[in-house]
Amino acid sequence: MRPSGRAVDQLRPLKITRHFTKHAEGSVLIECGDTKVICTATVVSGVPRFLRGKGQGWITAEYGMLPRSTEKRVDREATRGKQNGRTVEIQRLIGRSLRAAVDLKKLGENTITIDCDVIQADGGTRTASITGGFVALADAMNKLVESKRVKTNPIVSQIAAISVGVYKGVPVLDLDYPEDSNAETDMNIIMNDKGGFIEIQGTAEGEAFSDEHMVGMLAVARKGIAEIIAAQTAALAEK
Amino acid sequence: MRPSGRAVDQLRPLKITRHFTKHAEGSVLIECGDTKVICTATVVSGVPRFLRGKGQGWITAEYGMLPRSTEKRVDREATRGKQNGRTVEIQRLIGRSLRAAVDLKKLGENTITIDCDVIQADGGTRTASITGGFVALADAMNKLVESKRVKTNPIVSQIAAISVGVYKGVPVLDLDYPEDSNAETDMNIIMNDKGGFIEIQGTAEGEAFSDEHMVGMLAVARKGIAEIIAAQTAALAEK
Amino acid sequence: MRPSGRAVDQLRPLKITRHFTKHAEGSVLIECGDTKVICTATVVSGVPRFLRGKGQGWITAEYGMLPRSTEKRVDREATRGKQNGRTVEIQRLIGRSLRAAVDLKKLGENTITIDCDVIQADGGTRTASITGGFVALADAMNKLVESKRVKTNPIVSQIAAISVGVYKGVPVLDLDYPEDSNAETDMNIIMNDKGGFIEIQGTAEGEAFSDEHMVGMLAVARKGIAEIIAAQTAALAEK
Amino acid sequence: MRPSGRAVDQLRPLKITRHFTKHAEGSVLIECGDTKVICTATVVSGVPRFLRGKGQGWITAEYGMLPRSTEKRVDREATRGKQNGRTVEIQRLIGRSLRAAVDLKKLGENTITIDCDVIQADGGTRTASITGGFVALADAMNKLVESKRVKTNPIVSQIAAISVGVYKGVPVLDLDYPEDSNAETDMNIIMNDKGGFIEIQGTAEGEAFSDEHMVGMLAVARKGIAEIIAAQTAALAEK
Amino acid sequence: MRPSGRAVDQLRPLKITRHFTKHAEGSVLIECGDTKVICTATVVSGVPRFLRGKGQGWITAEYGMLPRSTEKRVDREATRGKQNGRTVEIQRLIGRSLRAAVDLKKLGENTITIDCDVIQADGGTRTASITGGFVALADAMNKLVESKRVKTNPIVSQIAAISVGVYKGVPVLDLDYPEDSNAETDMNIIMNDKGGFIEIQGTAEGEAFSDEHMVGMLAVARKGIAEIIAAQTAALAEK
Amino acid sequence: MRPSGRAVDQLRPLKITRHFTKHAEGSVLIECGDTKVICTATVVSGVPRFLRGKGQGWITAEYGMLPRSTEKRVDREATRGKQNGRTVEIQRLIGRSLRAAVDLKKLGENTITIDCDVIQADGGTRTASITGGFVALADAMNKLVESKRVKTNPIVSQIAAISVGVYKGVPVLDLDYPEDSNAETDMNIIMNDKGGFIEIQGTAEGEAFSDEHMVGMLAVARKGIAEIIAAQTAALAEK
Repeated sequence: MRPSGRAVDQLRPLKITRHFTKHAEGSVLIECGDTKVICTATVVSGVPRFLRGKGQGWITAEYGMLPRSTEKRVDREATRGKQNGRTVEIQRLIGRSLRAAVDLKKLGENTITIDCDVIQADGGTRTASITGGFVALADAMNKLVESKRVKTNPIVSQIAAISVGVYKGVPVLDLDYPEDSNAETDMNIIMNDKGGFIEIQGTAEGEAFSDEHMVGMLAVARKGIAEIIAAQTAALAEK
Repeated sequence: MRPSGRAVDQLRPLKITRHFTKHAEGSVLIECGDTKVICTATVVSGVPRFLRGKGQGWITAEYGMLPRSTEKRVDREATRGKQNGRTVEIQRLIGRSLRAAVDLKKLGENTITIDCDVIQADGGTRTASITGGFVALADAMNKLVESKRVKTNPIVSQIAAISVGVYKGVPVLDLDYPEDSNAETDMNIIMNDKGGFIEIQGTAEGEAFSDEHMVGMLAVARKGIAEIIAAQTAALAEK
Repeated sequence: MRPSGRAVDQLRPLKITRHFTKHAEGSVLIECGDTKVICTATVVSGVPRFLRGKGQGWITAEYGMLPRSTEKRVDREATRGKQNGRTVEIQRLIGRSLRAAVDLKKLGENTITIDCDVIQADGGTRTASITGGFVALADAMNKLVESKRVKTNPIVSQIAAISVGVYKGVPVLDLDYPEDSNAETDMNIIMNDKGGFIEIQGTAEGEAFSDEHMVGMLAVARKGIAEIIAAQTAALAEK
Repeated sequence: MRPSGRAVDQLRPLKITRHFTKHAEGSVLIECGDTKVICTATVVSGVPRFLRGKGQGWITAEYGMLPRSTEKRVDREATRGKQNGRTVEIQRLIGRSLRAAVDLKKLGENTITIDCDVIQADGGTRTASITGGFVALADAMNKLVESKRVKTNPIVSQIAAISVGVYKGVPVLDLDYPEDSNAETDMNIIMNDKGGFIEIQGTAEGEAFSDEHMVGMLAVARKGIAEIIAAQTAALAEK
Repeated sequence: MRPSGRAVDQLRPLKITRHFTKHAEGSVLIECGDTKVICTATVVSGVPRFLRGKGQGWITAEYGMLPRSTEKRVDREATRGKQNGRTVEIQRLIGRSLRAAVDLKKLGENTITIDCDVIQADGGTRTASITGGFVALADAMNKLVESKRVKTNPIVSQIAAISVGVYKGVPVLDLDYPEDSNAETDMNIIMNDKGGFIEIQGTAEGEAFSDEHMVGMLAVARKGIAEIIAAQTAALAEK
Repeated sequence: MRPSGRAVDQLRPLKITRHFTKHAEGSVLIECGDTKVICTATVVSGVPRFLRGKGQGWITAEYGMLPRSTEKRVDREATRGKQNGRTVEIQRLIGRSLRAAVDLKKLGENTITIDCDVIQADGGTRTASITGGFVALADAMNKLVESKRVKTNPIVSQIAAISVGVYKGVPVLDLDYPEDSNAETDMNIIMNDKGGFIEIQGTAEGEAFSDEHMVGMLAVARKGIAEIIAAQTAALAEK
């Protein structure tokens, strides 16, 4: 039934490559099928003005797409002079989600910026960014601990994200672009490793969706998140 | 338990004033407790470039806050030269939600812009904007029908929105600002008059939230939406 | 002779509502016929960089129109990314005029921002903004005195503004939109309660205007200003 | 009494050099004492969107200061990315004043842009821009007539401008910078060659000004304008 | 003598990977040592306004760095709202150089945009962008020929680029970052496959450079360009 | 052979007028044939953030064209809200070149801004800006020495610039606009008074250029630079 031939609750092949580039404190290439995102974590001392003197840190995120990461070239936002609404919405979601992984007090007055740059898009770039961004964040935190800039690791829970949707009337897991552009409902779910919800955003694209659809989407999401968390854990266990 | 003394499933007083200003095709003042938003609907012929020649119309929304609608003055976005991320996120949500109320084909090549301007903020401005914006939209549609610019009314369902949350561990309806700034979870729910979901956006502010919390929030939301839909219907029935 | 049937030296009905919104130190709704403007005053400690350490305060103003305050929707300036020339010109005039009401030394190193937001426009929005802005400013000053943040009230004179013009060859007072868009001359006059001029700006729209026209416009203006000052005084006298 | 030793109704030396640069349809260097402004007129076919198809032309103006035209360097507006409020106010005034010199119908669907660039500032740059801009405009109009792009010369009256003020209690003509920065009142007056007013803008800098001051300022202005008009006429009479 | 131990006329390892991403008409990853740039070519019908109706095509380029491609994170230009001077300078150079490879008449009214995005920087990103951009361009041209959108291949010469410099008094080839930041002279040379110069840009960083240095730099450049052209040819020969 | 009838190695008439405007620390009008540029030098205490505390100064440059300095009016960059790529490229070149004239340590923590504003353009505006900018810089440095703000003059070498090119197959010196727009190669050369190269930028406009062309262009450049340096020296020798 699915264009890709996958089962309704089947993830695309997921590959997480750490140390993808050499300069960043955390640098991850995440590949979810044909969706490929570079996620880097940068640590700097100090916090934004609104947090100064409060004895806590900050996590923020920025998101971008290479102009030709998509089927049709999108304008370079640096050239247009502003980020579009979709970009702003996505990077706010990534930042908010990853802050839920961290005890900002333990981070001290440091700021970590997660940059998520899509080099190839095939649906699910925002959830891939969160999943990959968490791994980059974890690497950066480990460096902070090793270098004794923080005393205890500020990570308090593991965060992963996935998209689900209603496609031809059926709840399905991990929409690729052909599904995403035809789904009746599109929902992004961010959860932690204890099964709690961090964020849930669902949108009816045509018809409104029902309680029943919602239950179905949450069920496949829960399965997918568990597999993704396992993949993150495995990646982080590699030397 | 609630700062306002309301029951957990009790809305704030809701007042919808139509024909609030004289120029717009639809003009509504919506008051949800101390939250006050002016929602106007403007009809123009033609559609944005990406829709030209497709024989359909478009609904879009813009959102703003008067600088001193809030406890502490916020910068005027026109002076800063850009809308901030929160504004962009909100106006995209309003537009998306209201498009779900309309058969864009029936609208023909017309564009309706819903402007939502907050003159006093006390929590729930985005859901008030959607609820009030729907009434302004309905008035504009009626004018299009009366003036025979469209043949049949393009409204296909009635849309309303409300915020819910988990406050001191309990699911509550219609958060005001003191609750909103202390809630553990904050969720905005947009539904139609048939009980279907249009959009759902939930965010854990501190702790992750559970399935149980979710069920509780959806239950109070459903009650609140029914009352709001009744209030919209009553307002629209007035001459 | 006038579209509204008013006498040549007759003001539109003028209504000043204090405490219109709840957060601001001063909040006024001014209604001059169908022109309606919300004027708020915000007090913050400190002054702009160019005044630091000079032992004086500052008064500034910002002006905006809700997009559908007008017959034809105007673009939201926050979306366009800049204020247009007319807006800039108007807010500079408001700020300059209200500074003439105040002894900035007595204000100490505090800044007061007057926000004037037009919710319905029918001619004369800039003069209504000055007249209403003065009342909001006075309320804010009273709060500063009551809270002992300043020793003596910095208000040194009362300021009001009105438009006059030459319409069908005759000097008239308080132009509404139908007159404004057809007047041969349009003049904004700002005066204080001692009959002194604070600012005068007159523009010939078609023909040049003569000394005689000027004398006539100043005469009706003087009558109008006296009535407006009385209305401000009455409003400020209410508890 | 005046810092420059001039009589109260004495202009600074005024010099108008036509054909100052070679590319423009009109190019004038105007020198009013130490104030020096290059005014060029550019003719292009077509009109702005809001005038298309109305069978008339348009006159617009832009104003700028070289960064070091002033005692203290001002930021280059091109670098800052926007024109400041003063610039916007000035260029709107120049455009509005020069349009009063022209029958836009006779101009046909052509647009003339007057660029006024201050290379040295010593007070009165906006009035110098109008006076010099008129001469550049007249040259451009003559070219349009000679080349038969218009049938009859669209100039209908000659326009000149001057600043006056109240300095040490006395109305004076043509303020230079030392006077301008200490004047109690500053007024810009734009008149035509028939003695009619085109625009009048007066601002009390400290004290409010009286009717008597106003009469005094208008008297010296009238004398100054007559001399300036004679100087324009002489300049335009040269081959 | 060189930090990397290379001979003075030795290139870093050069690797060109075609078909690096799936959507673009040409997509190349070029690796020059640790410098890694993704170069894509996008073909669209039509030309910019200034070329319309002239029967020719256009080649343009855009350049960007991922924020953490560098040792210290650089601000995301999309967030700052503008491209910085260095970026503008580089993308103009890339576009100008690649246009020299093409007969724009043969391209017809098509525009090709070369996007060069640096994912890891270690010196020489602009010359790598030109070298890799040429390969992406060639792939796009081949597709245009295969799909018969152009009759004959518009490529008229092969273009490659390299940096040279004077390091510790000696002309050296292909500067990496440690050399680049300490070189006395830095020169970028773009040549074609017939040994002609397309562009040469040399800058003395500290001391001025002599004719002798120039001869030396051109000599090593010529050797390097020959090797790079061979590498491009080999890459393009692969199926 | 040349449109102007000049010999291949003949400069246009060169005139350098110091003290052109009265406010700046250095103010030069440079005229190279019909190209006319005002170059001013402004000294301020302090340095940009990236240099603070390093005990050195900074030289920077900004470039602009009056809108009608050219045959066809160019948009005012202040109105468009950004400098275009060509402007950015040019002002970076001017700043870089003039920094090579100065020992920034001797300058102390002062910043000098060179503003180059083209009032009439006929080719070679960037090289005229560098040549004239050096004279303005020298005047400003002399004032710093006279006023004892610096101990020893920070100028370490004299800098001049000229364009050369290949026109109808022949290397020529100092291209004017008719040559510039038809040259096969265009090269800007900046040298010091000891015959060393500061910067060299050559671009093939159509055909690639050969070693032989390069030798020819450098030869005429060397002759031109010697004459320009003599002209600068003569200008600076005048009281």
